[in-house]
Amino acid sequence: MTGQILALSGGVGGAKLALGLAHAMSPADLTIVANTGDDFEHLGLHISPDIDTLLYALSGRDDQTRGWGRRDETWNFMATLAELGGETWFQLGDRDLALHVERTRRLHNGETLSDITQAVATSFGIMAQLLPMSDDSVRTRIRAVDGWMDFQRWFVGARCEPPVHALDFIGADKARPHKRILAALADTNLRAVIICPSNPLLSIAPILAMPALRQALAACAAPVIAVSPIIGGQAVKGPTVKMMRELGLPANAAGVAAHYEGLLDGYVLDEADADCARELGKLAISVLPTLMRTLDDKISVARAALALADKIRALR
Amino acid sequence: MTGQILALSGGVGGAKLALGLAHAMSPADLTIVANTGDDFEHLGLHISPDIDTLLYALSGRDDQTRGWGRRDETWNFMATLAELGGETWFQLGDRDLALHVERTRRLHNGETLSDITQAVATSFGIMAQLLPMSDDSVRTRIRAVDGWMDFQRWFVGARCEPPVHALDFIGADKARPHKRILAALADTNLRAVIICPSNPLLSIAPILAMPALRQALAACAAPVIAVSPIIGGQAVKGPTVKMMRELGLPANAAGVAAHYEGLLDGYVLDEADADCARELGKLAISVLPTLMRTLDDKISVARAALALADKIRALR
Repeated sequence: MTGQILALSGGVGGAKLALGLAHAMSPADLTIVANTGDDFEHLGLHISPDIDTLLYALSGRDDQTRGWGRRDETWNFMATLAELGGETWFQLGDRDLALHVERTRRLHNGETLSDITQAVATSFGIMAQLLPMSDDSVRTRIRAVDGWMDFQRWFVGARCEPPVHALDFIGADKARPHKRILAALADTNLRAVIICPSNPLLSIAPILAMPALRQALAACAAPVIAVSPIIGGQAVKGPTVKMMRELGLPANAAGVAAHYEGLLDGYVLDEADADCARELGKLAISVLPTLMRTLDDKISVARAALALADKIRALR
Repeated sequence: MTGQILALSGGVGGAKLALGLAHAMSPADLTIVANTGDDFEHLGLHISPDIDTLLYALSGRDDQTRGWGRRDETWNFMATLAELGGETWFQLGDRDLALHVERTRRLHNGETLSDITQAVATSFGIMAQLLPMSDDSVRTRIRAVDGWMDFQRWFVGARCEPPVHALDFIGADKARPHKRILAALADTNLRAVIICPSNPLLSIAPILAMPALRQALAACAAPVIAVSPIIGGQAVKGPTVKMMRELGLPANAAGVAAHYEGLLDGYVLDEADADCARELGKLAISVLPTLMRTLDDKISVARAALALADKIRALR
C-alpha cells in the first residue's frame, strides 16, 4: 500500500503517534499537521508549543523523562530572567529559546510559519513533512468562572485548574488552512487521515474549527481514523477527561469518537476501553494496547491505525 | 570633599575605572554615563554592549578571564542557533541573553532605556547610578574602504580589521542627552566629570557628539578630568591606537588629550607616557601606574582622578 498519510496532531500525545508513523511507513509520504491554537507571544517571542514538541519528538531531541521540552536542556536564561524580575511563569530552556528567537526573527522578516517550520524540521533531520495547520493566527482561549483566559495562562499559568465553561478559537473562522493540507484532502490517492491521540477539545478542535478544513475532511475520500487519547477512562497526560466532564460531555473513549461525529471511518482504542465498542455504532474499530512508552509501542499503534485505514479502503 | 561625580564611559576599559570609582567614593554620589553608540538590533533584540559591560563589571558578574560578557556563562542557545542555521557572528551567552530579551520586551512596552537600565542595575545590587547617554537612538558607523559599515559588523564581525576612513554617529545631532546628565553638568555642587579610559573615538565621541552635552560639558564649572586609555603608547585593549593612526591623529596619550581639547582641566596618564607631559601644555596632570588588573589598581586610578579634580577645584 502506498499513498500519502495526513496526521492531525497536538503536542506530546500526538507526537508519540507521529513518531510511530514516521517509523512505520515511508516518512516522505507522511505529512503531520500541527495545531497552532496554543501559539502565543511571550517576551516578544512567537512560541508554537505543539510545533516545537513535534520537532523535538520527531528528531529525538525531546526530554522523555521530564515529558516536555528539549533533552540536555539548561536553564541559565531563565535563572537570569528571574534575577531581573522578568516573567518566569512559562519556562524557556536555553536551547529551546534559540528556536523561538530564530522563528520570531524570520517571521518579522516576512517568512511564513510553515516555511520556517519546514526549514527547522530539515535542519533537525526530520524526513516527514511538518506543517502548521495555518499560517494565519488562531488563538485558543478558555472561559473559566472569572471570564476568558488566554490558553497558556490557563494551561501553564493556572495548571489547567480553573473549570472550563467554554472554549473559543479566535480567528479560526477566517484562518485559511495551509493549501497543502487542502490539496492532500482532495487527493484521490490519499491513503488516510489519522487524528492523533491528542486532546480533542484543545489540540484537534482548533484544526477542525477552520471551516474549509472541516468541510474538506468531511468530504475526503480516504478513510479518517482517530486514535483514542483515553486509556481505561483516563487521559494519559493532560486535562482531557477533566475538561470533557466540565463541559458535560461523556468522558470516555466513546465520548471522544462522538466528538468527531460525521468525520470518522475508523477508531483505534485501548483494550481497557473495549466496553466502549458498543457505543461506537458502525465505526470500524481496532482494539489493542495503546499506551505508548517505547518506540516499539509507538510503531505498534501507528501500524494498527494504518492497517485499520487500509482495511476500510479495501472494503469499499 | 563631597558632591556628585559624573563619569563618561564606554565598555571594558571604562568599566574598570567606574568600578574603582564605586569603591573609592560613596556610590550614591556616582553617576556613570554609558555610551550607546554601539547599541544595535540583533535577532530582534536591543543590545546595549557598553551598558551591559558596565552592569556586569559593577555587579561582579563580568568574566574577567575572557574579558567580555558574563562569568559562569553557558552557550547552549548559541549552539542551537548554529544548528538552526541562524546568525552566529555575535556571541550571546544564555545568561546574557536574558538581559537582552527583558530589555527588548520592556522597550516595546514603552519603558525608556534609562528606566530599564536603572531597574536592572538595582536588581544586580549596583548602588551607583547608571544612565545611558540618551534615550534617543545614536548609532555609530564606520567608513572603511568599501563604504559605511554598522559598528558591530566592523567591530565584531570584521574584528576591527578594515582600516577606518571616517566615523559617523547617526542621530547624535538630534539626540537629547538624558536630562539628569545635563542637570548634573549645570549643578554648581558637581565635584568633577571624569572621562574614563575608553576609546576616545568610539566610546566617548558618540557621547560628545550630542551638541547639548558637549556644550554643557564645555561650560561646566566642575573640573573635567580624563584618564588616558593608552599605556606606553599602546591601547590596553581594542583598536584605539590603530584607529588614531588610520585617521591621521597623533597616536599616543597626548593625542587623546588633544582629542578632548577645550573640555579638559586635568589628565591622568601612565608613568610609561610621562614623556607626553610636555605636549599637554597647561593641563594639570597626575602620573601614576594606570594599568588596572586588580580591584586595588582600579581604586588607585580612581583615587588619582578624584584627587586631581579636587586639587584643581581647590586652586580656583
